[in-house]
Amino acid sequence: MNELFSERIADVPKSFIREILKVAVDPEIISFAGGLPNKELFPVDDIQKAADFQLGHYGRDILQYSSTEGYLPLREYIAKRYKEKKQLNISADNILITSGSQQALDLLGKIFINKGDHLIIEEPGYLGAIQAFSIYEPVFRAIPLKEDGLVVDKLRKALENSEPKLMYLVPNFQNPSGITYSEANREKISQVIEKKRCYIIEDDPYGELRYIGKDRKSFQHFLPDQTILLGSFSKVVAPGFRIGWMAASDDLMDKLITAKQASDLHTNYFGQRILYQFLVSNNLDEHVEKIKERYNKQRERMLYYIEKYLPAGISSTRPEGGMFLWLSLPDKMKAMDLFNIAIKMLVAFVPGDPFYVGKDGVNTLRLNFSCSSEETIEEGIKRLGLAINQLLG
Amino acid sequence: MNELFSERIADVPKSFIREILKVAVDPEIISFAGGLPNKELFPVDDIQKAADFQLGHYGRDILQYSSTEGYLPLREYIAKRYKEKKQLNISADNILITSGSQQALDLLGKIFINKGDHLIIEEPGYLGAIQAFSIYEPVFRAIPLKEDGLVVDKLRKALENSEPKLMYLVPNFQNPSGITYSEANREKISQVIEKKRCYIIEDDPYGELRYIGKDRKSFQHFLPDQTILLGSFSKVVAPGFRIGWMAASDDLMDKLITAKQASDLHTNYFGQRILYQFLVSNNLDEHVEKIKERYNKQRERMLYYIEKYLPAGISSTRPEGGMFLWLSLPDKMKAMDLFNIAIKMLVAFVPGDPFYVGKDGVNTLRLNFSCSSEETIEEGIKRLGLAINQLLG
Repeated sequence: MNELFSERIADVPKSFIREILKVAVDPEIISFAGGLPNKELFPVDDIQKAADFQLGHYGRDILQYSSTEGYLPLREYIAKRYKEKKQLNISADNILITSGSQQALDLLGKIFINKGDHLIIEEPGYLGAIQAFSIYEPVFRAIPLKEDGLVVDKLRKALENSEPKLMYLVPNFQNPSGITYSEANREKISQVIEKKRCYIIEDDPYGELRYIGKDRKSFQHFLPDQTILLGSFSKVVAPGFRIGWMAASDDLMDKLITAKQASDLHTNYFGQRILYQFLVSNNLDEHVEKIKERYNKQRERMLYYIEKYLPAGISSTRPEGGMFLWLSLPDKMKAMDLFNIAIKMLVAFVPGDPFYVGKDGVNTLRLNFSCSSEETIEEGIKRLGLAINQLLG
Repeated sequence: MNELFSERIADVPKSFIREILKVAVDPEIISFAGGLPNKELFPVDDIQKAADFQLGHYGRDILQYSSTEGYLPLREYIAKRYKEKKQLNISADNILITSGSQQALDLLGKIFINKGDHLIIEEPGYLGAIQAFSIYEPVFRAIPLKEDGLVVDKLRKALENSEPKLMYLVPNFQNPSGITYSEANREKISQVIEKKRCYIIEDDPYGELRYIGKDRKSFQHFLPDQTILLGSFSKVVAPGFRIGWMAASDDLMDKLITAKQASDLHTNYFGQRILYQFLVSNNLDEHVEKIKERYNKQRERMLYYIEKYLPAGISSTRPEGGMFLWLSLPDKMKAMDLFNIAIKMLVAFVPGDPFYVGKDGVNTLRLNFSCSSEETIEEGIKRLGLAINQLLG
């Protein structure tokens, strides 16, 4: 009865990563394809203490149903951290706990997107967002990224013949490119968007993982009423909890809460309470420092070995934080072709294709550096160099 | 910028229960309005042991991202239990772990419902389902329930001028009515649906909580290819984990997994692993027996006090299991009017209104018996009797 499927689901891209990684099951393969945080850094012992404390003191409560908005003290913790770290005044009342920040994308799709509505995304863009929004059948308008952020002229031009409701951006250490928007770029974008009836969705899962340079202002500073901020504990504590959040203005909260309730009633309360206990019983800053120290070393080594082992004509972004960097191959080389050779040489990455809407055969690819040791990075990039050379002939 | 909201979100009913319970904040109020399991019965110590074991042995793994389908051993456990308890042959490959069974409704809406598609629901029907499906803008066709299940003639008639894709049923101890479909009723429904291009969504969160009578066959027995089974650990272990599941045929799994991935990547893995550990380290049957013993006593007392304290002309369903019963007031009496008086007398319930699509001012109401002690039940029903008498004048 396949003809019963909805029109919307026909349009949703299958997970490309899922599909291509089916060929990468050989345990000998060095994979830079994942997007996982490094599990060696998970604060297991402290989470065990937190779980033990919560179950010992509040067991019955933390196992019960809870409120759709999420655990209030956790929302207050997030609000306080915004204030301390980014000088943002966001009330706990404007924070909704979501089942990972992926769910925030689904909820925003639900409350905003009618079929055919225009939506601005980055090119390349985060594929989880492309997938989540696709369900609601928007028209994607992709605006290219360059070193310092979005190409503002192209944005301006796109707005001449389009009235997008939403603009989805990952301004810090973007996935997949690793690019960070400069403050000037953020200001220019804000000036363009200020006059429009359009929300900026600022997705910031990696914001705390800055290794060099200094923090840039959130779009919340420039356009507080038009910015919806997404955050996540997945990269700074652990993703297994599936706990993220969304900060939105008063006029959106009611609809978001209705959509959240219809979607899953509320985010798992057991995890919210244990995560909260971990946060208040430990120093998150110290923990984040450990992550940053490790990831930065791996980032540096990857950049170093790219320089050392990859042939001329390959360029890489130089991310100031996050978990990814982005390679551009010579113009006519297809990342998918390289992938097929690389897999045989036992190294994997994500070809750029799924990060574009309506393009394939691209010459770009994503490398993850958070999950591999320095030795593995050397060996993997060496193999990648051999694969590129083979493809070059 | 409220005009930016999608059409779909405008149609979703606000949570009626949420709204009406705002008036019921007085701690002196005895509430039969909730739908919570009794937290005194949560197996806190055993869950603490399970958490400790998992974090001690597999801490890093259970905190990482995981697969969209859910933890395989947990899905195998569910499959095995279906086989043992209900003689159903369902493979773990056909089970998707969801963020509560509420999410299963959202995923089914996503993959099936185009705006205007017909969808059959029970009258009265589960309001969480009405809310979840409303997002996808179907036309609801409500078929009344009577003592032994759906009114089959009305179903047949509805199918003469409608081609519903989906039919949403809660055949065991239904929420809100407490009604259980007889086996003959299930068979008749199956005969009617067999010839149609329509899936039955059989939602069974309370199925294990049977206090009297014997188990009835699932629609899976009659229509294996047309039945989608939903289940949940919320009522037999604890709802705070937000872990439910959906069992569906091969041709649906791919689309469901795509929709699940777009919605929240996967259900919280931390909770899945700890719940699994609890299940394999303990005897779930023994635990369920404890719940049944307690709820059954409360159910019996509530029925007894209804007989004793409510005036003539009030009828109640006599549920064989679950957590709810359903009162019908005299024809012209409105449950909302009674609610307003009852609240002043410090007793709360859910007026029937939100369980109907396109009807209000109904004379029915839902009472929950799982969460109140026998003494509280006596006092609450006494107050309810006084309120009814006051309304009767």
